[in-house]
Amino acid sequence: MAGARKDGAGKNGAQPEFAAVILAGGSGTRFWPRSRRARPKQVLSLDGDRTMIQNTVERVKPVVSAGQVWIITNDLLAKTIAKQLPDVTEKHILREPAARNTAPACGLAAFLLERQSPDTVLGVFPSDHTIGDVTRFRRVVCAGAALAQRSAAIVVLGVSPSRPETGYGYIELGAAVEPIVEGGESIPVRRVRRFTEKPDKVKARRFLRSGNYAWNSGMFLWTAKTLADAMREHQPRTAELLERIAAAWGTPKFEKVFAELYPHCESISIDYAVLEPRSAKGEAKSELYCLPGDFAWSDLGSWAALHEHVAEHTESHNANVVEAEHHVEIASTGCYVFSPNKTVALVGVKDLVVVETEDAILITTREGSQDVGKVVAELKNTGRHHLT
Amino acid sequence: MAGARKDGAGKNGAQPEFAAVILAGGSGTRFWPRSRRARPKQVLSLDGDRTMIQNTVERVKPVVSAGQVWIITNDLLAKTIAKQLPDVTEKHILREPAARNTAPACGLAAFLLERQSPDTVLGVFPSDHTIGDVTRFRRVVCAGAALAQRSAAIVVLGVSPSRPETGYGYIELGAAVEPIVEGGESIPVRRVRRFTEKPDKVKARRFLRSGNYAWNSGMFLWTAKTLADAMREHQPRTAELLERIAAAWGTPKFEKVFAELYPHCESISIDYAVLEPRSAKGEAKSELYCLPGDFAWSDLGSWAALHEHVAEHTESHNANVVEAEHHVEIASTGCYVFSPNKTVALVGVKDLVVVETEDAILITTREGSQDVGKVVAELKNTGRHHLT
Repeated sequence: MAGARKDGAGKNGAQPEFAAVILAGGSGTRFWPRSRRARPKQVLSLDGDRTMIQNTVERVKPVVSAGQVWIITNDLLAKTIAKQLPDVTEKHILREPAARNTAPACGLAAFLLERQSPDTVLGVFPSDHTIGDVTRFRRVVCAGAALAQRSAAIVVLGVSPSRPETGYGYIELGAAVEPIVEGGESIPVRRVRRFTEKPDKVKARRFLRSGNYAWNSGMFLWTAKTLADAMREHQPRTAELLERIAAAWGTPKFEKVFAELYPHCESISIDYAVLEPRSAKGEAKSELYCLPGDFAWSDLGSWAALHEHVAEHTESHNANVVEAEHHVEIASTGCYVFSPNKTVALVGVKDLVVVETEDAILITTREGSQDVGKVVAELKNTGRHHLT
Repeated sequence: MAGARKDGAGKNGAQPEFAAVILAGGSGTRFWPRSRRARPKQVLSLDGDRTMIQNTVERVKPVVSAGQVWIITNDLLAKTIAKQLPDVTEKHILREPAARNTAPACGLAAFLLERQSPDTVLGVFPSDHTIGDVTRFRRVVCAGAALAQRSAAIVVLGVSPSRPETGYGYIELGAAVEPIVEGGESIPVRRVRRFTEKPDKVKARRFLRSGNYAWNSGMFLWTAKTLADAMREHQPRTAELLERIAAAWGTPKFEKVFAELYPHCESISIDYAVLEPRSAKGEAKSELYCLPGDFAWSDLGSWAALHEHVAEHTESHNANVVEAEHHVEIASTGCYVFSPNKTVALVGVKDLVVVETEDAILITTREGSQDVGKVVAELKNTGRHHLT
C-alpha cells in the first residue's frame, strides 16, 4: 500500500499488502445499443474519454500494492481489457471458463492470494461503477483495508440511499463502533446487522425512511484468509474446487484445471454465499462492518442514470446532454443523446434518450430506458444475435 | 392527349394538345435532414421507391401529349432531375437563372407554348405533392383541360379543407355550373368567387365551417394563350421579358438571353400575379373555375404530414411508421422513424419523429416537426452551410 502515502491517505504503523480484485465478467444489456456481448458497459467510455474499467483501475491503483491488480473476466472480453489496461500484469487477467456469478470469482482470488500471503487485504470492486469523489473513495478504502486486516473482519462499503430503489441489495446498519482516522479524516464505522436482497417497493420505502439502511455497493474488503475461510465454511464444495484451481496456478496445467473444475462451482453471488449467512448469525457474533460509500457513487444502471450523472456537472438540472459532432436545441429539455459523428437537432422534445451506433438507434424516454433489456431479449428471440 | 384513352379518361371530340409544366425549383427545409439545398423534397423518395418528381411525371404522363412534359427548375437540381426523368426531353428541363417564384416560371412556359400552338392546354403541377387516387386525378385533369380549352378559362383544382390550415391559400367558391363528364364520371364545376392568401386561424376556421372554401392546390389548367394574355394584362413588364426569352428559344443565344432577362422578372406567385386580380373583378366577369381536387391530395408539408400519409395505408391510426433495416417496438405509438440502414428500437415513446441521415439526426415530435425550418436557419446562422 505504498501508493497510499502519495494520496495523503497513509496511516501510522505497517501498511497491509493490498490487492484489488476487479470483477469484469458482466454482460449487461442496459446500455444497448452501445453495449453488446463483446462490448459490455465496463469496456465502454460512457462518461468521458476513458472506459469504466480504466477508471476503476486508475481509482484503486494508488492504494494497491505494486502489481496487485487482478481482473476476473471471460474469454470474450479478456483481449479488449488487456488492451485497455496495458499496465496490468497479463496473467492477472483471469478468464472464467464459465460465468459463475461473484462468489466463485471472489473466492478464487482469495485462494490464490492466501497461498502467497494470507494477510493480504483483498478489495473487491465492480468494474462498471462511477465514483465522483475519488479522494474520499481512496480514504474510505484505506480505512476499510486497515479495519479488514486488524480485526479479520469483512468490510462492506454502503451507500446512503437517495431513493426507494428496488434493484439493489440493502444493508441494515447496527451499532456504531470507533471511527477510523484516515488522511486526517474520520471515517465512521457501523456494524452490519443484516443483508437484504432486492426489496419490494414498500420495503424499499421503509428502508429509505428509517435512515438505518445503506445500499450494498458490491465493494468489499477482507483479508485473503478471511474470505477463503468464509468460503470454506459456507461454500465447502465450491471452496474445494477453487483450492484445487489455485494450487495449479503458475503450472502448465492451470488452464486445463481451471476449465475443468470452475464450471462445477456453484453459481451464486458473494452476497448470498457469504455475507447473508454471516450476518444471519446476529450482531453479537458479527465480524461485518460497513463503511460509508459517501463518494458520489453510481452504478449507472441505465441511460437515465448516466444522463443524471453527466448532467450533475452542468448548470441546469433540465439540461440536455448531447454527445454529437454538433447540435442544435430548440425548445427541448432533459434529453440524453449520443451520436458522436453527427449533427443532432432537438426540436420540442423532453426527457428523451436517443443513442445511435453504427448499426442501431435506440429511441426511448428517461423512464423507458429501464426497459432497454427487453429490446435485447427481442433481438435474441428473433435470431439477431449480431445486434446483442 | 392520346394517352388519356389508355386511362379510360378519353372524351368525345378532338383531344386538346396538353402540356404539363412541372414546377421543381423549390428548396424547402421541412424535410431536413433528408432535404438539403441540392436535394430538396421533390427529388427525394419520401413515400415509396420513386421520387416525388418521378411520381408527378408518372401521374400526368398518360394525359399529356407526347413529348410535352416541361420541368422548370434551377442549376443546382437540373442534373439530378434529368437523371431521375430519363424520358423527359432534356431541353424541356429549364434552368431558371434566378428564383423568381411561380408567375415568371408559369408565364415563360405559356409564352414558349403560345408560339408553338396557342390553344395548347398547359397544366401547372407542383413537383412535391402526393396524390392517393391517381385515376380520379387524371379524370379531373382531363375535365379541366377540356374546360380550359372550351371556354378560354382559368381552371384551378381546389381541395376540400379538412382542417383550419393557415399555411395554404383558399378559394372562395361561387355558383355551380354544368358538370363535365369524364371517363363516365361527372366532375362538378364551381365558379371562383375569390382567392384568399394564407388566412389567420380565426378566418381559417370560418372558411372550414362555411363549406364554401377550397384549398388552393397550386394546380392550374389554361391554354397557353389564356395564361400569356393574363400575364400581358396583369404583369406587363415581366410578360415583355418573358416574350423576349421565348423568342430566343431554340436559338444559340437562348441561354444568354435567359440569364440576362429572367432575373429582372418580378418575383411573385402566379396566385398573386394573375389569379387574385382576375377574381377581384367579381363573379360575373370571371373566367375562373374550380374543379374538385378530390383525389387524396397532400402537399406533405412536414414530417408529420408524411407520417399521416404513409400511416393511412396501415391498419391502426396510431401505428408507428418505421423505415429501417429492422425494428423493435415496445409500448410505442404514433412515431415516424427514418433510418434505412439501421435497427431501430422504440421503447415507451409516443408521437415522435426521428430522421437519421449520414451526417445528421433530427429528433422531434409530430407537432414539433413544423419547426424544422428553424434548425436549418440556425445551421445557416452558424455557418454550417454543408448541413443545409
